[in-house]
Amino acid sequence: MLNGRNVWIGEKPCQLVYSTKTLQPHQPLISMKQKIRVTVWGENVHEQKYPAIAKIYPQGMHGTIAEALRESEDLEVVTATLQQPENGLPDSILENTDVLTWWGHCAHDQVADAVVDRVQARVLQGMGLVVLHSGHYSKIFKRLLGTTCSLTWREAGEKERVWVCNPGHPIAQGIDRYFEIPNEEMYGEPFAIPNPDEVVFLSWFEGGEVFRSGCTWKRGNGKVFYFRPGHESYPTYHHKDVRRVLQNAVHWARPEGSLWIDSCPNVPIERAPEPITLKGETMHEPGGTGFR
Amino acid sequence: MLNGRNVWIGEKPCQLVYSTKTLQPHQPLISMKQKIRVTVWGENVHEQKYPAIAKIYPQGMHGTIAEALRESEDLEVVTATLQQPENGLPDSILENTDVLTWWGHCAHDQVADAVVDRVQARVLQGMGLVVLHSGHYSKIFKRLLGTTCSLTWREAGEKERVWVCNPGHPIAQGIDRYFEIPNEEMYGEPFAIPNPDEVVFLSWFEGGEVFRSGCTWKRGNGKVFYFRPGHESYPTYHHKDVRRVLQNAVHWARPEGSLWIDSCPNVPIERAPEPITLKGETMHEPGGTGFR
Amino acid sequence: MLNGRNVWIGEKPCQLVYSTKTLQPHQPLISMKQKIRVTVWGENVHEQKYPAIAKIYPQGMHGTIAEALRESEDLEVVTATLQQPENGLPDSILENTDVLTWWGHCAHDQVADAVVDRVQARVLQGMGLVVLHSGHYSKIFKRLLGTTCSLTWREAGEKERVWVCNPGHPIAQGIDRYFEIPNEEMYGEPFAIPNPDEVVFLSWFEGGEVFRSGCTWKRGNGKVFYFRPGHESYPTYHHKDVRRVLQNAVHWARPEGSLWIDSCPNVPIERAPEPITLKGETMHEPGGTGFR
Amino acid sequence: MLNGRNVWIGEKPCQLVYSTKTLQPHQPLISMKQKIRVTVWGENVHEQKYPAIAKIYPQGMHGTIAEALRESEDLEVVTATLQQPENGLPDSILENTDVLTWWGHCAHDQVADAVVDRVQARVLQGMGLVVLHSGHYSKIFKRLLGTTCSLTWREAGEKERVWVCNPGHPIAQGIDRYFEIPNEEMYGEPFAIPNPDEVVFLSWFEGGEVFRSGCTWKRGNGKVFYFRPGHESYPTYHHKDVRRVLQNAVHWARPEGSLWIDSCPNVPIERAPEPITLKGETMHEPGGTGFR
Repeated sequence: MLNGRNVWIGEKPCQLVYSTKTLQPHQPLISMKQKIRVTVWGENVHEQKYPAIAKIYPQGMHGTIAEALRESEDLEVVTATLQQPENGLPDSILENTDVLTWWGHCAHDQVADAVVDRVQARVLQGMGLVVLHSGHYSKIFKRLLGTTCSLTWREAGEKERVWVCNPGHPIAQGIDRYFEIPNEEMYGEPFAIPNPDEVVFLSWFEGGEVFRSGCTWKRGNGKVFYFRPGHESYPTYHHKDVRRVLQNAVHWARPEGSLWIDSCPNVPIERAPEPITLKGETMHEPGGTGFR
Repeated sequence: MLNGRNVWIGEKPCQLVYSTKTLQPHQPLISMKQKIRVTVWGENVHEQKYPAIAKIYPQGMHGTIAEALRESEDLEVVTATLQQPENGLPDSILENTDVLTWWGHCAHDQVADAVVDRVQARVLQGMGLVVLHSGHYSKIFKRLLGTTCSLTWREAGEKERVWVCNPGHPIAQGIDRYFEIPNEEMYGEPFAIPNPDEVVFLSWFEGGEVFRSGCTWKRGNGKVFYFRPGHESYPTYHHKDVRRVLQNAVHWARPEGSLWIDSCPNVPIERAPEPITLKGETMHEPGGTGFR
Repeated sequence: MLNGRNVWIGEKPCQLVYSTKTLQPHQPLISMKQKIRVTVWGENVHEQKYPAIAKIYPQGMHGTIAEALRESEDLEVVTATLQQPENGLPDSILENTDVLTWWGHCAHDQVADAVVDRVQARVLQGMGLVVLHSGHYSKIFKRLLGTTCSLTWREAGEKERVWVCNPGHPIAQGIDRYFEIPNEEMYGEPFAIPNPDEVVFLSWFEGGEVFRSGCTWKRGNGKVFYFRPGHESYPTYHHKDVRRVLQNAVHWARPEGSLWIDSCPNVPIERAPEPITLKGETMHEPGGTGFR
Repeated sequence: MLNGRNVWIGEKPCQLVYSTKTLQPHQPLISMKQKIRVTVWGENVHEQKYPAIAKIYPQGMHGTIAEALRESEDLEVVTATLQQPENGLPDSILENTDVLTWWGHCAHDQVADAVVDRVQARVLQGMGLVVLHSGHYSKIFKRLLGTTCSLTWREAGEKERVWVCNPGHPIAQGIDRYFEIPNEEMYGEPFAIPNPDEVVFLSWFEGGEVFRSGCTWKRGNGKVFYFRPGHESYPTYHHKDVRRVLQNAVHWARPEGSLWIDSCPNVPIERAPEPITLKGETMHEPGGTGFR
């Protein structure tokens, strides 16, 4: 099920069997020669419902995002949508996904909690997650960050100028000092997120606001990137620089290291690294798995 | 309901009414002269069920923790338990709580999700949260951190030595270079948490493990502190240094700044800071509240 | 010399004498009732040299900043300037400073390295530091952050709009969603700093740039805040909201916890917490102080 | 001089010429197929002076560290020592170094400040830095972190057990839950560093102390890793797991993204992204380079 990749796991409650002993030196989780397997998740509602949106994104927004990523030869891209069984994200897909991109807006609550659990588990194991625009309010983003992820907003088709805060950052490669999007929805501060590990982009809006538009976090072994642009009523995902950022972000978010499936394992007394003997009261049955 | 304290709030979807204009200079959210209102939450199961535990904590573990905090004159302490209506944490209690301490172990899943929602909302507004020992697996801790919060463990009554990583930190005041707990449950790395803002304590265990025993995070405006010691079968909460850390942690976690109740407010075009006019398509109805 | 405050110190190489044993519970380093002792450091060059600057700041920029802080009754404010002996910052001043504010521009290299060493030592012990505007290139700021602290800039007297990223943050108290400065120098990203602990303010500039204008870091026990506005050719330090931020920042940066004067102390074998005996080769003389 | 790699640079004060326009999509700074060029820097004093050390490290400590790295085929390793001209680190070497490892102990003060400046500049551009053991007190480490980097210590040849905090981390690959070093110098908390981005390893010592033994930071575009083990009087760099960590760390620290040589460039009014005109006083001459 894990594709032959290396797993660090505590399978049975009383055994600490997670081990990387079979790993050869310098054999990364994903070989640099291997293609990165990307799943582009799309809510796929607006483009079905509104002809104006369908005109901009005739193949769906997910179709255009996937097309943008396919410009990069080392990406192997599939799409998945809300309307599919298990919201398009059964185990069989997630286990073969290195990086997941997420665009949703009006139907966040239609994503099944079981799917969110599964995506979260995969991120913690090491799958990359790129959350786009209105995905700031998706269940998975709020789940991983622990905050409301609120912001202020205005839909006026105003100009957005996206500035690079760290020109050397992998996600900013190929981007000049800034790029402009002629028409976008405004998202303004305060953006209710935990402090990012890095702020890669900041946006300037014609109407006078600013926003932390490109932010990174790590959760477990998974890298998370939030990228602001992408309102459905504008052709943002056809924009050359936006596409480049998407490609860069997927490369940056690829898993590194090995999978870590943690299981809160009990270490029996006789397997303690230093010899000890039992003292005092005990609450847990010998060999118990603890309370969850 | 908010006790006359200052609130920064976007009440109505189309108005940005959050304002601190009435705040006088240097008037903190909680005056330094005001007492800190602490609610000590206890699961209260083991001490009811096991005479050995009841003997160590005749007033319940929450009772002993509350007693420890009451040694500090500027704390106003109440207790709440799982078995009470709304798990002891109705709005009326939470709205009058500056810092909440949380001990749970075998009944995490009996805490109502609505209660967890409410506690999370209060933390984001600014309430401090001190999570104790097996509370690492509580719903609220996992909710705020976004990870599994797993670890390895062993119940052998072994010695734990808690080291101070930053002697000047407020939570370490009155503690020497380290303190020892004669009998404790072992918690070992890996501890599956997002990188803490600060690691205040590290533990050394007789059986050979180590653990990040005192960690801080910020979520919204709330300060979160995790403190490892406190297994129910040992008299840990009677330990002088543990009690001192509890007192320090509650002082450190007190709210500062003002409450921030965010609501993702729409900023209408005519209220943009710079004059702009509508361009292109729109998806949202004028005055709409956006999708959640 | 340390004013009777609590010190955690390893004075002699072979003794670990740092101890807080004399600290009473909840006795903070600076009592909340004590006034905060602020030293406002000013380079004091432009205002002496250019009549246009002297007209805006007849008492010197440091004089105006000090005046702004004195609006707050619990601050005890003195000034110090580059031209004074030891650049105005002898030990006797620093030891009685809880928070230091720093404005410099054209004479960063005239600050003696010994003074920078001393200020750094005090920050690590717990003194707060508020670095203003062109102080981004001061020796002390670069010393504490470890990076170049570069940025892009333009002196065009354009409008700056300073946005609050976290309305509940203590440094943002009394500030509405944003404030505007009619004429300021532009500072633009990329700002070459280590990732801040928190970004409190972001600036929008009329000419199209953005900037992380309010950033916090911790170094040792000292809190560091950088605040962007304050070019000498504009009356920025007369601006009501800028003054409020200065007051807030000084309150936020006040020391908490106890002083920590670290000394890399040797722990002799006979004082190890667990009994051990010498094994193998040794490089250090018994009782040696180690290499620095 | 920069080896044909991509550079983002502001060369002339009045021009913003840094550009990545020539970068092809997904062309990383260092191709994944390219070898990583590592320079192993050694102080090379103890092994010359003490026969006991020379016996453990007949080729010098740097020689053994280089040998360990050469086990990995994709590393191209050279050594440099204190005694060489420019302390072995002239521009010609640094410009061809992707990752630098640093071991020093008794002669930190003999490293020329100009060399430290140069190494710092390269790290900020993107060169990785792996600081070993007593290198915690090296000029370059203190320069990049901004703190004293103090700790407590004891040279008793005691057992050290190094625990993995994040089993999936690239630097922990091939390492089991922990590894043991039979004889090592003890380093204990408090370790006076800014909060690390990640703590990869924690050490348990036989004598009762604990330590954050594997820590990461980012400074500019350079990745910095500190790894504790490696006292000169023990054969630590012959230890299989220590060697594996060194190899992993060098791979982790390889540059990614593009070089960023920042220069605090002035953006002339006529090149502002939004059209503006000069307002108010100016301090800087047109075309000036600003004050440093």
